[in-house]
Amino acid sequence: MPSQTKDHFTRTPRTTVRRRPARARYDRQTVHAILDEALFCHVGFVVDGQPFVIPTIHARLREVVYLHGSSASRMLRTLAEGVEVCLTATILDGLVLARSAFHHSMNYRSVMVFGRAREVVDLREQRRALQAVVEHVVPGRWADARHPSEAELRQTKLLALALSEASAKVRTGPPLDDESDYELPLWAGELPLRLTPLAARPDPRLPGGIAVPSYVTGYERPIGPGRPKPEV
Amino acid sequence: MPSQTKDHFTRTPRTTVRRRPARARYDRQTVHAILDEALFCHVGFVVDGQPFVIPTIHARLREVVYLHGSSASRMLRTLAEGVEVCLTATILDGLVLARSAFHHSMNYRSVMVFGRAREVVDLREQRRALQAVVEHVVPGRWADARHPSEAELRQTKLLALALSEASAKVRTGPPLDDESDYELPLWAGELPLRLTPLAARPDPRLPGGIAVPSYVTGYERPIGPGRPKPEV
Repeated sequence: MPSQTKDHFTRTPRTTVRRRPARARYDRQTVHAILDEALFCHVGFVVDGQPFVIPTIHARLREVVYLHGSSASRMLRTLAEGVEVCLTATILDGLVLARSAFHHSMNYRSVMVFGRAREVVDLREQRRALQAVVEHVVPGRWADARHPSEAELRQTKLLALALSEASAKVRTGPPLDDESDYELPLWAGELPLRLTPLAARPDPRLPGGIAVPSYVTGYERPIGPGRPKPEV
Repeated sequence: MPSQTKDHFTRTPRTTVRRRPARARYDRQTVHAILDEALFCHVGFVVDGQPFVIPTIHARLREVVYLHGSSASRMLRTLAEGVEVCLTATILDGLVLARSAFHHSMNYRSVMVFGRAREVVDLREQRRALQAVVEHVVPGRWADARHPSEAELRQTKLLALALSEASAKVRTGPPLDDESDYELPLWAGELPLRLTPLAARPDPRLPGGIAVPSYVTGYERPIGPGRPKPEV
């Protein structure tokens, strides 16, 4: 049974996908790959019964997701109190044009992680987590950037959310139309979408003669399982 | 005062941006443009104290955001009960590479909408809302697609969330480094990112001789204010 192996997350009532369970994935490889490819996530939490959903930069290190922000952030202060969190990361892979308006859909990969976050207070873990965040967003950048001072680390609030309750949901492939609609003389299929870099813009205050690094000119996201391959 | 004009949302405690208030936008034009460009949003709600954050297709019609799903969806059933919702739509515009690791950031535009959703039960409003959703995702598609039958409309659950409490947050521009770091011999700047269509993939069951429509071959998102212009 998947829920009893180390390579899979144990299903819980809140991680079990109920709507279209065939699209659910509980294996760590899929969950890791989506978290690693997504550049940011949305973090949900509750304050006085009111839900808040905030876009946040994250990074995964083994079985921990780090969330990054300023120590002035209300979200991070609230989460550091140990309240329940739902972290959702979604990658849009394409639009699905069915013959019927009703069956239009999207291809996507998403992950939900549940749990209570803890604040990272150890300076070494803070440094590792900040490094993971920078490398998550721009692999190769940490080696070049000025590393954080102790004062900067103290101004950075990093939270850690253990990857213990998580699941993924993935839709791929062509539209699924009603059988009687397939004879309609109407184009149907997928329009794949990809987050693509444009030309880099140097900081206006950059002195001349500094080349754009190869991790910027050749930027691309890590490709995880489930990501559709581009077709030529 | 912005909060007293029709073109701006009245600020409330939950929509007032506290962290980096200079990035806050309360004008309807900015909020509308972000909701219209974003292909999907994340909807947060609370069940028994537990937050859930679900990626969802939406569409805006004037001052209402419609949410689309199946009548089998737990989320939509919960929301139809009139619980408090936080809808967040985020568009990533680029990566911001500062000289210091500490000041790395992202350029983005996001919207948060608060309120209680109502279920759309009138068949004409359901049809208008489904049309808005299809046209939101692929402008031009509604005229071609087979329109929904009454049975399909009854299987579609659509929720309406009034745009009465909303705000936006926008970061643009180059990195903001510490003054002493500007002399470091290190590339810094922005790497703009854009969601870009790849080649369309026809449904394997599509008969020959059906051309790809121009709204697919020429697909692009509507461009709203605040979206950085591509540079050549």
